[in-house]
Formats: sequence, structure tokens, C-alpha cells
Amino acid sequence: MNLKELGEFGLIDRFAAGVADKASVKIGIGDDAAAFEPAEGHLSLVTSDMLIEGVHFDLALCDPLTLGRKSLAVNLSDLAAMGATPRYFLLSLAIPAALTVEFLDGFIAGIMQRAEQFGVTLVGGDTCSSKGGLVISVTAIGEQLPELVVRRSGARPGDLLFVTGTLGDSALGLKLLRKGERRGLLVERHLDPEPRVAAGILLAEAGVATAMIDVSDGLLADLGHILRLSNVGARVELKNVPLSPGYTEEISRLAGDPFSLALGGGEDYELLFTAPPLLKDRVITLMAECGVAVSLIGEITASGRLSVINVDGEEYQAVQRGYNHFA
Amino acid sequence: MNLKELGEFGLIDRFAAGVADKASVKIGIGDDAAAFEPAEGHLSLVTSDMLIEGVHFDLALCDPLTLGRKSLAVNLSDLAAMGATPRYFLLSLAIPAALTVEFLDGFIAGIMQRAEQFGVTLVGGDTCSSKGGLVISVTAIGEQLPELVVRRSGARPGDLLFVTGTLGDSALGLKLLRKGERRGLLVERHLDPEPRVAAGILLAEAGVATAMIDVSDGLLADLGHILRLSNVGARVELKNVPLSPGYTEEISRLAGDPFSLALGGGEDYELLFTAPPLLKDRVITLMAECGVAVSLIGEITASGRLSVINVDGEEYQAVQRGYNHFA
Repeated sequence: MNLKELGEFGLIDRFAAGVADKASVKIGIGDDAAAFEPAEGHLSLVTSDMLIEGVHFDLALCDPLTLGRKSLAVNLSDLAAMGATPRYFLLSLAIPAALTVEFLDGFIAGIMQRAEQFGVTLVGGDTCSSKGGLVISVTAIGEQLPELVVRRSGARPGDLLFVTGTLGDSALGLKLLRKGERRGLLVERHLDPEPRVAAGILLAEAGVATAMIDVSDGLLADLGHILRLSNVGARVELKNVPLSPGYTEEISRLAGDPFSLALGGGEDYELLFTAPPLLKDRVITLMAECGVAVSLIGEITASGRLSVINVDGEEYQAVQRGYNHFA
Repeated sequence: MNLKELGEFGLIDRFAAGVADKASVKIGIGDDAAAFEPAEGHLSLVTSDMLIEGVHFDLALCDPLTLGRKSLAVNLSDLAAMGATPRYFLLSLAIPAALTVEFLDGFIAGIMQRAEQFGVTLVGGDTCSSKGGLVISVTAIGEQLPELVVRRSGARPGDLLFVTGTLGDSALGLKLLRKGERRGLLVERHLDPEPRVAAGILLAEAGVATAMIDVSDGLLADLGHILRLSNVGARVELKNVPLSPGYTEEISRLAGDPFSLALGGGEDYELLFTAPPLLKDRVITLMAECGVAVSLIGEITASGRLSVINVDGEEYQAVQRGYNHFA
């Protein structure tokens, strides 16, 4: 069967078939708008990310299942960075005529895997044809108590700077993909990132994180957002920036600067956050609780500037400062 | 200045500059997610629509201001069809390199005109580059008390069937646009539709509408959704289907069947709704209150089928049943 035979409403039915009932969803797929009942006293948090063929993904380098998984994951990562519990999502697709129903079935299966894993419900969206490539637009909605939401603007001088997981794997994985590699941890981290949903919620609900962001544009670029909005500076120790064994092994063959992709590569979807020094042990305990590695990579300063210290104790000159979509 | 010089964050600043403060917006543009405080006891209603260059619009046939206006209007129309008061929206754009900053400024001005008119606030979104055409994805969020939300599924046999405004103007306007016309009411109705926000809210809050939908795929297709979800039939009197003087004058020159575009053209963004016969006068009074024309075009039946009666009292054979994106 091709997409023309399946039709717009046949496609919508295929999405709707995978949706679990949830009491707070009052109107799901199939009306002019979806309706949900916000949790009493909670803020609603909402974020939107687009994935564009040829910009964010290359259909020759990914399979439909992981593309579906990633489409939801990158949005859940944004909610995690606020400390919000994800609840609902909308999915809009612009579909080129050449795309097969098999591809769409794989994509649906992937996005529904992530939806089930994190307890989020598809409530609506839009499907249409595309004259260009595949366009995926996801809006994710979560909730949290107002006093527990973690913003980018709350970092204070003296706060410690932490990051989850390891950095640079995704950017290096993309380089390997483009060179023909199809497997391995680095490639997987690019194609199928794991949003740090539980870690984000734990950090928010324990009240330990003063500022938080997810690393999507690269560590230095995203740290820059925290610094600018908090009106502070930071000192980052390069020797403490977490690198995976696979990254360390591969980077020497591919890039001159071993830290370039860890600092400026992007698409890590790790959480970068600050916490008061007294809560250092609490942070480590919480991250152990949810099985997420965490590294103390520096501290917030009153200086107003970002200083990166290399392994020799000298100032590091960053080569790449993250991704600008129109550069 | 071009888009490359303006940059991603320069563009976001340009959007943020037009945003008015609203007490219920707790976190606006500039964090990982936006946060708003849902009104107590209300449902949140959410809808998403994409506009794709080459599918929904042709940059040679529209100006950036009206494209911006329409991008928000079509989403507000969906909320109106639920009887919801619109509150917030997110805007995601995938922008081709060739698009000028002047174009984007016009687009921003247009979308902000509609936002101001209807009291909705831009709270977030995404901007990225596009290798294909311009992609516009809007998510609109509104609210309403649970008992006042109007669904597609509430029509009952005996209910009267109403539609606001006139039908077919937009589809005919598009035909004229493609033939080189650039002005006139029909063309305007295609390029710059007026969402029936006040009418939708009035009908919901007065408790008169039993089912409602906005006419985006064509009268017969959208009525079909009401009938299927309400498990009823309908009888539509063709002589009562509202046509504008401009439509009546032009249609004879362009199409064989004078009703084809009024019944199946789409993009009317009028409200199609049902109400009990006893509330007929109330419907007419309410629509007069908000200055929106309304026509009684038929009634809901228990027959389970849609019957369209032409001016001679005979069954009409519909030529076109609305738009299927993948047909």
C-alpha cells in the first residue's frame, strides 16, 4: 500500500491506534483541537521543535524507528531541562509523495515507543503533503508546580556547574555516520539520544538545581545562555568535562582538537545545571538514584565571563562555539 | 541585512520584541520551554497546523503580512470551533536561505497583528534553516470550562444546521489568484481569512451549539466529520447555502457547477454548527451581536446519510467532496 491509497485519514487512524487512554486527556485525536485537564496548581510547560530533512536528519543515514524516537526525545529533553513531567504531545508531519507507508509505520512505532516509555500521550497534530523533504514538528506539553520549575536564569556566583552523561558523542557519531559507519555507541548517541527526563524531574523536585538547560547547541553555547540570563560568569575545568571511552578513542583520528566536539558539537541532550556547593553530595545521590552519570565541571563566578581552563591550567581557546542555524 | 547577518538569535529577538506582557505567561520566549498558568477549572485546548510552501501557499501569490496573519488565523479557527478562548501560541519556522529579512519582518508584523487582535501571546517555538521551501508550524492554546466545550460529536436528530458567513469565496479566490488576479474580496478571503473567534465563544458560552467544526476542507467533508462522530445524518438545502455576490458573479465564468466550490472548495474558515430548533432565534441574536452572518442550511436527521437537496427539490450529486492531502 502506498500513501495515496492509505490517505490522510487512514494515516491519522494509524497514529490514533497506538494511543493509550489517559484520564486527563478529555478530547484526543479527531476533533478541531485536543483538550486536557491541567493538574491543579501546576504550570503547563510547552515546547516545540522541528526536524527538517536535509538539515536535522538524512534519510540515507537513519532508519524510521530511531527517527521517530528522536523526534519525541528532543522535545522531552526541553521539558526535562525545566524539571517538568511530560504529559502530552502533538505531531505535525509534511510528507513527500515518495515516502512509503512502511517508513511511516516505522516512524510511528518509534515515536510511540518513546511516548510509552515516558508516559506521554499523542493528542493531536496535522498531516499534509510536502513538495520538499520530510518535515516533523512536535509540540510537547508537561507540568510542574510553579516553585519547582527550573529556569536558565537562576545561577548564582559560587554555584557548582554539573553536566550529566558524556559530551561530544553525538557530534562525533554524526561525523562517523557521514564517513559510512552505521553502528557503535557514538552513532547511536546521535541517532537515538536518551532524554534525561527522570534526572530533570528529580533535580527540580528536590529543589537542588538553581539553573538548568539541555545541551543541544553545544556545551559552551548552552552554558552561554545560562550565564547571560543569570548575569554571571563561569569557570569550566576542561579536565573534568566528561568524555566517553569511545569518544576519546575516535576523536584523535578525526579532529585536531580533542575537546572541540565535546564543547561545541551539539545534540548531546544532556542536562547542564547549577547547584549550591552545600548540595553537591545531594546532586550525586540523586543522579545515582536515577542511574545517570554526573560530572562536576566547574563553578559559577561573579566575573561576567566564561573562562575555560585546559589540562595545563591555562586558558583554553575555543574553536567552535556551537551551532547557528543561519550561519 | 540578510538572514545570515541577523542570525538565529537576532531573529528570535525580533519576534520577542512584539510580544505583550500577560500575567498568565509565567515564562515566555527564551527558556527551554514556556510556562503558563492554566485558568482554574478550565480545560486547556491545543491545536497545531502547518503551512508548507508549494502546498498551502505560493510566495509569488501572497505577501508576507497576510501570510503571517493567515498562519495564526487558521489555528485560531480550530480553537473557535471548540468554543475556546485563545490564549497562547508557539511558532516554528524552517526558513530557506533565500528568504529576506524584509520578508520575515512583514511576516512577523502580520502574525503579531492577529495575535494582538485576539489577545493571544507568542510564548515559544523554533527557528531553523530549510533546504526546501518555507515551513510554518503554529501551535495554538486556548481554554474553556469543560461543560462549555463544543465537540464534533454532539449533533442530534432534529437539530438545525447553521453556517456562518459565505462559502466558496476562498477556493474561488485561489482560482482567480492563479489566473493573475491580485485584488478583490474573493482573493482576500483566500489570503486573509477571518477566524470566527467571537462567534465560536458566544455559541459555546450560551450553550446553544450541540456540535461545531470549522470549514477548512469544504462544507460536505467537514459536515461529514460531524455526522460520522455524532452518528447521525443530515439534509442540506442547496438554496440556503450562503454565497457571496462576488462568488455568484464569478463562479459562472469559471466552473460548470455553481455549487462545487461552496460545497467542496475548502479554506472557508467559517463555523458549521448544530443547535436545537427551539434555540433558532437565540442563534440568530447571538450572531447579530458579534456581527457575523449566519444561515440555516439544513437539519440533522436520524437517517445516517447526508442528503443534499438542490433548488428543484431533487437530490444533488456532489462532484467534489473536499480535500485529501495525499490524493
